[in-house]
Amino acid sequence: MVINKVDIQTQIADAVEAARRTNPLVGSVTNAVTVNFVANAQLAVGGSAAVVYLSEEGEILSNVGNAFYINIGTLLPIHEHALPLIAKGLHDSAKPWVLDPVAVGIGTLRTGLLMQFKAYMPSIIRGNASEIIALANLWDNKKGETSNVRGVDSTDAVSSARAAAVALAKQTGGAVAVSGKTDLITNGEIVVYSYGGSHYFEKITGAGCSLGGITAVYAATSSPFIAALAATAIYNLAGHRAESKASGPGSFHVEFIDELYKAKAVDVANNQFEVEEA
Amino acid sequence: MVINKVDIQTQIADAVEAARRTNPLVGSVTNAVTVNFVANAQLAVGGSAAVVYLSEEGEILSNVGNAFYINIGTLLPIHEHALPLIAKGLHDSAKPWVLDPVAVGIGTLRTGLLMQFKAYMPSIIRGNASEIIALANLWDNKKGETSNVRGVDSTDAVSSARAAAVALAKQTGGAVAVSGKTDLITNGEIVVYSYGGSHYFEKITGAGCSLGGITAVYAATSSPFIAALAATAIYNLAGHRAESKASGPGSFHVEFIDELYKAKAVDVANNQFEVEEA
Amino acid sequence: MVINKVDIQTQIADAVEAARRTNPLVGSVTNAVTVNFVANAQLAVGGSAAVVYLSEEGEILSNVGNAFYINIGTLLPIHEHALPLIAKGLHDSAKPWVLDPVAVGIGTLRTGLLMQFKAYMPSIIRGNASEIIALANLWDNKKGETSNVRGVDSTDAVSSARAAAVALAKQTGGAVAVSGKTDLITNGEIVVYSYGGSHYFEKITGAGCSLGGITAVYAATSSPFIAALAATAIYNLAGHRAESKASGPGSFHVEFIDELYKAKAVDVANNQFEVEEA
Repeated sequence: MVINKVDIQTQIADAVEAARRTNPLVGSVTNAVTVNFVANAQLAVGGSAAVVYLSEEGEILSNVGNAFYINIGTLLPIHEHALPLIAKGLHDSAKPWVLDPVAVGIGTLRTGLLMQFKAYMPSIIRGNASEIIALANLWDNKKGETSNVRGVDSTDAVSSARAAAVALAKQTGGAVAVSGKTDLITNGEIVVYSYGGSHYFEKITGAGCSLGGITAVYAATSSPFIAALAATAIYNLAGHRAESKASGPGSFHVEFIDELYKAKAVDVANNQFEVEEA
Repeated sequence: MVINKVDIQTQIADAVEAARRTNPLVGSVTNAVTVNFVANAQLAVGGSAAVVYLSEEGEILSNVGNAFYINIGTLLPIHEHALPLIAKGLHDSAKPWVLDPVAVGIGTLRTGLLMQFKAYMPSIIRGNASEIIALANLWDNKKGETSNVRGVDSTDAVSSARAAAVALAKQTGGAVAVSGKTDLITNGEIVVYSYGGSHYFEKITGAGCSLGGITAVYAATSSPFIAALAATAIYNLAGHRAESKASGPGSFHVEFIDELYKAKAVDVANNQFEVEEA
Repeated sequence: MVINKVDIQTQIADAVEAARRTNPLVGSVTNAVTVNFVANAQLAVGGSAAVVYLSEEGEILSNVGNAFYINIGTLLPIHEHALPLIAKGLHDSAKPWVLDPVAVGIGTLRTGLLMQFKAYMPSIIRGNASEIIALANLWDNKKGETSNVRGVDSTDAVSSARAAAVALAKQTGGAVAVSGKTDLITNGEIVVYSYGGSHYFEKITGAGCSLGGITAVYAATSSPFIAALAATAIYNLAGHRAESKASGPGSFHVEFIDELYKAKAVDVANNQFEVEEA
């Protein structure tokens, strides 16, 4: 397999520009803590954000929208009924959607929902290493590995989730993004490591969620793999730039949104990454 | 009809000062995405913010509070029962309230709620052009026009909603504010165009919601028409000033809250507007 | 009783350092308006934040987490069932937890929940003067006093809640923190007055909530009394420093998070306070 970095960079730049040009409508079911951050991050990269709870509204958005983001961070009773219907609607209408399996393993509702999502084939799965390993275990791919989900934080290194990520990508036919100090993105055949970001990402709530939300914006106009790469690249570029201007996590958050908004496609495409075969 | 701009300006300045002096208590049922922004905007202009979900608590706030804001952006099952009771309570106690018909037309619950609100006569209706046209259609005033609601964004120009806004204002006996590049506010007899604001309003989530929330603060101490004018004016003034200091939507958001807080009544009153007969 | 200020300062510094070193996992059930601010404040002082609604998830967090924060600001139907179970779980597992009795007195669900919490003995109760007086009345300690809860704001002075705070602290065997211009913290034997803070705290939503959230972080590694003192001290220090850099409530909020993050343990310990016997 010949891996052409320049070709990947061209597609990343195209994804960044397409989102700004077409203003895709991205629906979300996402957690209460970071919903504002997710929506603002989506707007900053060119998307339009619509958040819903009701299954009927989610199904309407699945039809009229261009992509969807599902984040199970703070589950409410309504999600038990609504989320499987929305995920099924996305699958049936072949709309790209991003799954953020936050805190997989905590509680029976969360586990039950994630088990149902398996049939609906998320285009992109984004999580930290512990979450990706745990989801792969749950979906029966990597029974031998163990993960360490602790609340919303990862206690595993990104590299430890490589096999799980590749397995999930092959299973879904989409892409998987593992977030951490260095991010790993794979489509099951190629593994990309993306560099940059900031230590402040661990000091603000919703860094991972906003990455998931941005990924859904790019999924509206690009392949799952390119969408995951573009989102991770702009996120790492903006995080790196924001850190240099910030004096703490509060100002970092503000600068990060500004840098997402200002990032040029060519700079996103040139954000450091490495490619290897899966 | 003689329209006296100076008289309007005096009343706008009075509204701004009264809110700061009396710290009115404003209840809200509002969406999950922007609830923090709405509350902070209300505090920045002098109000006190209390957000509720339960009908009993909404009814208590309808009595002890000075005004109310209802935004149907992210509907939950509880809203089906609670919102009509709260709106009825506001109507029965003659408390001023602002309706933000976000995404009117999306889903049966949303449509059903808005149909019920017709009987409870919101003092002020605030929305983008698409929403105002769609609500007027729903309430049977302008059956001939068509709107283009797409998620939470407007795809219609403000001017196209002029007739719908005037009709709704006559129907409710209150005021209607149409948000866009230039804002239109009417009490059914006079139409005001308010200038200023910022292109960043489309790049942050909740710009419209925060305007609705501020409008409710001013509605506590002013007539619906003056409240809508004062809210739009301070919003456009603060947005214009914030844009000149911002380097992206993140810093714009921060500067915007600061400018809402710092705006002097006389400057709000002098923010550019034009008046014509409806 | 000999009261040693230096000993208290040493314990405050230890609490600040322990939180940063051990990154305690703090679960929360908290209100929709300020949940993002609470989580970011908790992260800024070294904690890890996990927000839940479902009783099962709350009970899991009660076991695996190090402390918990319960804020009843925006009640949903689910809270009627879930909150007593979570509070009972915290009590049964002897985990430290902070109760923020927001708007006590408003509505039957709120009153019913607070009555049930009495049996589960919160380690720390944090509220404004009106809330502390009202809770003490509700729990039968100070039937003779009256409070003036108005929405989420206090209309009573901190000093007026001294007796109520001491009584609640004796009743629970924990600590009580009364927030206001000068903050009062007591363990039932000693009363501490903490100085600093900012007038902007009244102009942003969630100042009290974020203090409650930070208190829960410190409660994970310190006694209730020291946790309440350390949280109030870092909050007042960061608020004072942030005010000097802010030009309004928007920038104050940003600077406040930065200053929470940057505050050195020795400076927190040296933030002005006075001690007297209860």
